[in-house]
Amino acid sequence: MAKSASKKPEPRWATKKGSWLTYRPDIKVLDCTIRDGGLVNNSKFGDDFVRAIYQACVAAGVDYMEVGYKASRKLYSPTEYGCWKFCDENDIRRVVGENKTPLKLSAMADAERTDYREDILPKDQSVLDMIRVATYIHQIPTAVEMIKDAHDKGYETTLNLMAVSVVPERELDEALDILTQTDVDVIYLVDSFGALYSEEIHTLASKYLRYAGAADKKVGIHTHNNQQLAYANTIEALILGASYLDATMAGLGRGAGNCPLELLLGFLKNPKFHVRPLLKCVQEHLVPMRQGIAWGFDLPYMLTGQMNLHPRSAMAFLDGNSPTDYVAFYDSIVEEE
Amino acid sequence: MAKSASKKPEPRWATKKGSWLTYRPDIKVLDCTIRDGGLVNNSKFGDDFVRAIYQACVAAGVDYMEVGYKASRKLYSPTEYGCWKFCDENDIRRVVGENKTPLKLSAMADAERTDYREDILPKDQSVLDMIRVATYIHQIPTAVEMIKDAHDKGYETTLNLMAVSVVPERELDEALDILTQTDVDVIYLVDSFGALYSEEIHTLASKYLRYAGAADKKVGIHTHNNQQLAYANTIEALILGASYLDATMAGLGRGAGNCPLELLLGFLKNPKFHVRPLLKCVQEHLVPMRQGIAWGFDLPYMLTGQMNLHPRSAMAFLDGNSPTDYVAFYDSIVEEE
Repeated sequence: MAKSASKKPEPRWATKKGSWLTYRPDIKVLDCTIRDGGLVNNSKFGDDFVRAIYQACVAAGVDYMEVGYKASRKLYSPTEYGCWKFCDENDIRRVVGENKTPLKLSAMADAERTDYREDILPKDQSVLDMIRVATYIHQIPTAVEMIKDAHDKGYETTLNLMAVSVVPERELDEALDILTQTDVDVIYLVDSFGALYSEEIHTLASKYLRYAGAADKKVGIHTHNNQQLAYANTIEALILGASYLDATMAGLGRGAGNCPLELLLGFLKNPKFHVRPLLKCVQEHLVPMRQGIAWGFDLPYMLTGQMNLHPRSAMAFLDGNSPTDYVAFYDSIVEEE
Repeated sequence: MAKSASKKPEPRWATKKGSWLTYRPDIKVLDCTIRDGGLVNNSKFGDDFVRAIYQACVAAGVDYMEVGYKASRKLYSPTEYGCWKFCDENDIRRVVGENKTPLKLSAMADAERTDYREDILPKDQSVLDMIRVATYIHQIPTAVEMIKDAHDKGYETTLNLMAVSVVPERELDEALDILTQTDVDVIYLVDSFGALYSEEIHTLASKYLRYAGAADKKVGIHTHNNQQLAYANTIEALILGASYLDATMAGLGRGAGNCPLELLLGFLKNPKFHVRPLLKCVQEHLVPMRQGIAWGFDLPYMLTGQMNLHPRSAMAFLDGNSPTDYVAFYDSIVEEE
């Protein structure tokens, strides 16, 4: 008599949150070069650039690529912004075709800045796989409706609660409690101001994981590099158990930029990830961009990060006539306080 | 009858390794802009530059400033290297006079590259306060003699065990055991290759603290920014209990550079620290330096850091004709492996 196939017990390392020589299959890497990087150039990327990012993501084994925003044309002028601010289906397909690859595609919709009911098509009509809803704490009721809409249309969904470094604890607890009762798949810890350091990431990620875990949801992390902690905080959150990790090539992003994807992929041990295609894309497409647009760490961003402020004052200062008069900038924001 | 003055019990926070709103009086910040930064220009700093760093350190509340190396003139030519490679007493005094400030001064002596018996004067003839002995693991016996020499001459001493990311565990344990039996005051965890990340810092710093604590010694941390983790790893080690923290202004240093002092001081809560004098020094003296000398994070340094290699191949590549051909560099070091 043939022995019935017995299900093998999972190896011990597979149930751990990672170790020195293993990897966690639950880790998902999301490239948001086009979406978040779009804040440096009003999303005016040429098709060739977007295609290069797309092909590099596929070759590198990245899990998701965010191709842009689903922004309202009533609020953003299509002459002032590139097509990746709106992500019409035909614009996306012009670059990715039917996207017959393992790479999933996402778009971000900002609460109160999107006509999501009309502009987000049912999943079966779209090449997108995931809708990410970005919200400030006071817009949570709107965000909850947006999640329901996207989920009902057939998409994977994430909720990106922005600027958590200025959210009071009691409001955060209530928001997380509300979110666990929605259909959202992933709740993101978002350090919009680049203000958090490792102990704060510990405290917050543990809280997110507690709420999310109880509701069988995942936690994501999205960081900014104001204090040179974007990558460090990302791996800190992932070590704790966060599994959706945002990054951009060469850290492209407004102000101090984001967690660099090439740093992150060099850290992850899953053999499906490959850093070489990223290096190629960075040298061919991101390095030339630096001729015209500045991004990345600078002391004014450090100061707004340290003071837990939106970086807009630093961006304005660096666009001005004395971008290295750090003392003048310091004096101006200390005085404002 | 007057009540006898009773000694107040220490407040609870003073015995903790730090909390959200307190600070640790045991934390000492060491500026090594001139010493470690000297590796970018063969220590050829003008007196005005060194004086500016000195005055900024005093004004910022920094605890130690390392003014350079005590290198052997038999190994390093005084025409090829500036005077801060040798730190003769009269050179130091030309800038700091008798140093009537709370800032202490240190110099570094590399094992086997110094004539320490002759070149390091007895403390009562020197304006230096501390000698830091840098050593590779195989030079420990020499380093132990150097510590004895400096200690006997009256100096505070540290031992900086370099390139710990390539030291086998059993050798490290033996080295730490030997060092605890010397008179050294501080044992430094040194990430020469910028190869360590937070979990490794945890493991190593905990080990150093265990050995050092049992022998009533302190632990220091010295990092490099190859993976944008210099600052993150420094605060990680300090949170664990390391108390001597190395940094340089604007992260000046060979290759990817060091932990930026202005980031570190912005994190520390002791009211004696002031970031404004550092910003002034950076904008007046470090920003102009960038015209002639490149330092700081770049992808070739990231790759040597990720592969736990000395950054010399990355430095050579970036000095070559195609410094942004990251793929070519990647292929070259992968092939070498």
